[in-house]
Amino acid sequence: MKNRLEIRIGLVGLGTVGQGVVELLQQQGAFFSRDLGFDFRIAAACARKESELNSITDPGCFKTTDALAVANHPDVDVFIELAGGEDMPKPWFEAALQSGKHVITANKALLAKHGAELFPLAAKHDRFLLFEAAVGGGIPIVKTLQEGLVGNDIDGLACIINGTCNYILTQMTRNKESFDDALAEAQRLGYAEANPGFDIDGMDSLHKVALLASMAYGHYVDYRKLSVEGIRNVSALDIQMADEMGYVVKLLGVVSQDHNRVLAAVYPALLERSHQLASVNGVLNGVYLKTSAAGPQLFTGAGAGRRPTASAVISDLVSLARQLATGHPVPSSMAYFSNDNAAQLLSIDELETEFYLRLTTVDKPGVLSKVTGILGENGISIRALSQKPEHDPQHVPVIILTHSVKNAKVAEALRQIDALDVVSAPTRVIRFYK
Amino acid sequence: MKNRLEIRIGLVGLGTVGQGVVELLQQQGAFFSRDLGFDFRIAAACARKESELNSITDPGCFKTTDALAVANHPDVDVFIELAGGEDMPKPWFEAALQSGKHVITANKALLAKHGAELFPLAAKHDRFLLFEAAVGGGIPIVKTLQEGLVGNDIDGLACIINGTCNYILTQMTRNKESFDDALAEAQRLGYAEANPGFDIDGMDSLHKVALLASMAYGHYVDYRKLSVEGIRNVSALDIQMADEMGYVVKLLGVVSQDHNRVLAAVYPALLERSHQLASVNGVLNGVYLKTSAAGPQLFTGAGAGRRPTASAVISDLVSLARQLATGHPVPSSMAYFSNDNAAQLLSIDELETEFYLRLTTVDKPGVLSKVTGILGENGISIRALSQKPEHDPQHVPVIILTHSVKNAKVAEALRQIDALDVVSAPTRVIRFYK
Repeated sequence: MKNRLEIRIGLVGLGTVGQGVVELLQQQGAFFSRDLGFDFRIAAACARKESELNSITDPGCFKTTDALAVANHPDVDVFIELAGGEDMPKPWFEAALQSGKHVITANKALLAKHGAELFPLAAKHDRFLLFEAAVGGGIPIVKTLQEGLVGNDIDGLACIINGTCNYILTQMTRNKESFDDALAEAQRLGYAEANPGFDIDGMDSLHKVALLASMAYGHYVDYRKLSVEGIRNVSALDIQMADEMGYVVKLLGVVSQDHNRVLAAVYPALLERSHQLASVNGVLNGVYLKTSAAGPQLFTGAGAGRRPTASAVISDLVSLARQLATGHPVPSSMAYFSNDNAAQLLSIDELETEFYLRLTTVDKPGVLSKVTGILGENGISIRALSQKPEHDPQHVPVIILTHSVKNAKVAEALRQIDALDVVSAPTRVIRFYK
Repeated sequence: MKNRLEIRIGLVGLGTVGQGVVELLQQQGAFFSRDLGFDFRIAAACARKESELNSITDPGCFKTTDALAVANHPDVDVFIELAGGEDMPKPWFEAALQSGKHVITANKALLAKHGAELFPLAAKHDRFLLFEAAVGGGIPIVKTLQEGLVGNDIDGLACIINGTCNYILTQMTRNKESFDDALAEAQRLGYAEANPGFDIDGMDSLHKVALLASMAYGHYVDYRKLSVEGIRNVSALDIQMADEMGYVVKLLGVVSQDHNRVLAAVYPALLERSHQLASVNGVLNGVYLKTSAAGPQLFTGAGAGRRPTASAVISDLVSLARQLATGHPVPSSMAYFSNDNAAQLLSIDELETEFYLRLTTVDKPGVLSKVTGILGENGISIRALSQKPEHDPQHVPVIILTHSVKNAKVAEALRQIDALDVVSAPTRVIRFYK
């Protein structure tokens, strides 16, 4: 009854996610063909090693180790990039778009860095550039922002968007482990890379937050202009203090808007235990949206991994196919993601919230009076203060909770406090999120 | 740059949700026009009372109190039905589809009852019949099932899909209130109708569950063939017992599949407090999906109300517009929702789970031996048993937790137990959900 439509895929990258896509296309192929009318065929494939190409069994598939040959291949309708790398795939994207192909990718690093060129290029060539898999793994959050909640302004957004960090913080909370022990366990289980800096210092989260913020506000948010802090300095003591107060520590991406200016940042935050995001644990991701009409919404699921990420790629593929089936596809445009349309950004200095400060002081009379004096001079009002017993009199932790105050004031106060000779290590800061 | 497309709306129903749609179209009109290229215009509108039509200020709008006149109006592209009623709007849908209009509705009762005629009719006329607003209010769960997770089999689904029931159970839990007190409060706050049976006896949930099950498995699930139990018999004691065990009671819609046979039902269930659905409280809805590739996912948000429901209608409108913009729209088909393609259903007798049983017995020696004897004869193994102190010796509650067992065996045992002269009221059953 329905016309069948063949869609020819050029697939670059047959690592974990690429193999997941091949697998899902095989498993769901009959459903796509019979129920949706789409025959997806891998017409060209590229891998770093020829041996990886063996998983493509179709004898008609053009196999290569040259990604550009796939991007330029005349018999490809959609170019799927799953190789990764924040720079290397860029010329492939350009070649694919210029030769009239639609593009699907899971590459947040590349989109965050080069999207301001690539999205306008896609729009210029009237082609789709889809990236559901780049943010939130299997959670269809891109589609939700662009389509499901299209009738809403986004009043604010908070997300747990890096599974590695969430796993480490969850383990530290559950098992009262140190950061180093939890990281080592995450590495052993394959949840953290041998070189984990990209995740634990927040850069991966930042790439995704920049994409989410751009979609939420319809302007280009450049991740290079945003503030980022990872979880390296979150200590077992911080987690324990949080727990005693009824809070959990999460690495959050936080986005808000004030008078058309966007504040986006990544930092560890204290969340009340009853907050919906507080129960997003382990490697799960969660995106919490404050929407103008539909109210607060939360979406959680696996944020990474072979099959969840492949699921998101397939979702883009079917969305594209539904448009191609019309014969006259109209790409939904991300052309706003360009330097000409950059968001007006608010610096994190402008963020107003409550703070948790963990000072490390020398056990001497008068220390607290100096510290609280500096806080007072900077207009920071103290909600609670406690000094923790510690064997080492050179390193006594002092925990201070502030009332709501601008980040800039806290930063200035800490510059002064950390210069005191009675303060023996940099003060650690965790912001509250409400 | 982009071509502008005018989409002419025929809107029937200007009650709560209808007014919300008018409001959102006004608020977001500039965005839709400028950024998406769609000019939505209410070309015809129908309300029960002429006074309700005053909110439509466009002098060019055709106003009427006759819904069929809108359905048949030649200058309407999309017919939006927000009047409600499980039968009355059916001829309007037929007229609209037959005269070449696409249809958007929030009417779950009508779709559950007449969808098996209406979805095939839409397919026959090559028209969209969209219903994001019918399930889960502002949560874009229809789009998520049909598009965002299209690469997945749904291994199972559990949902809290009626805000009235969830509010009542949440209040009973938080304030240790009786069902009657919590219902009265919900009515006072406008969360429950004066005649609340449709919600609290589970019928509204059942309509939505039948739609979700149909989408999840690609077959027509007729709600009239499903088992439904509401929350009227959930007592404060049940909630308290659950709390002591670390559980909460939620009215769940539960869907699963076994060898291509679908089991769908609505019943109160015990959820471990750490389950993600357990923290979906108050009037919030939540849909928990076990997906084959993307893993478990949870979506929560406002399940009803003027603006959340309007947000979902707008989402359908923009999806439709994106297809109309191609000039050759290809309706995504729900033609499978027909009697020719009915799902093979598994009776709730086949459900295998653990049970919580609350017996009401007369305080006499030998009662427990009779009861446990019957359970044993029916192959039901007991995990825990406790007798609650009670002033009235004619009504002593006995709580029994079973190991996992088929529903049919429990039903048979309870037929025998409730016939005992030492059992003074019908035994209440709450199933565990894992």
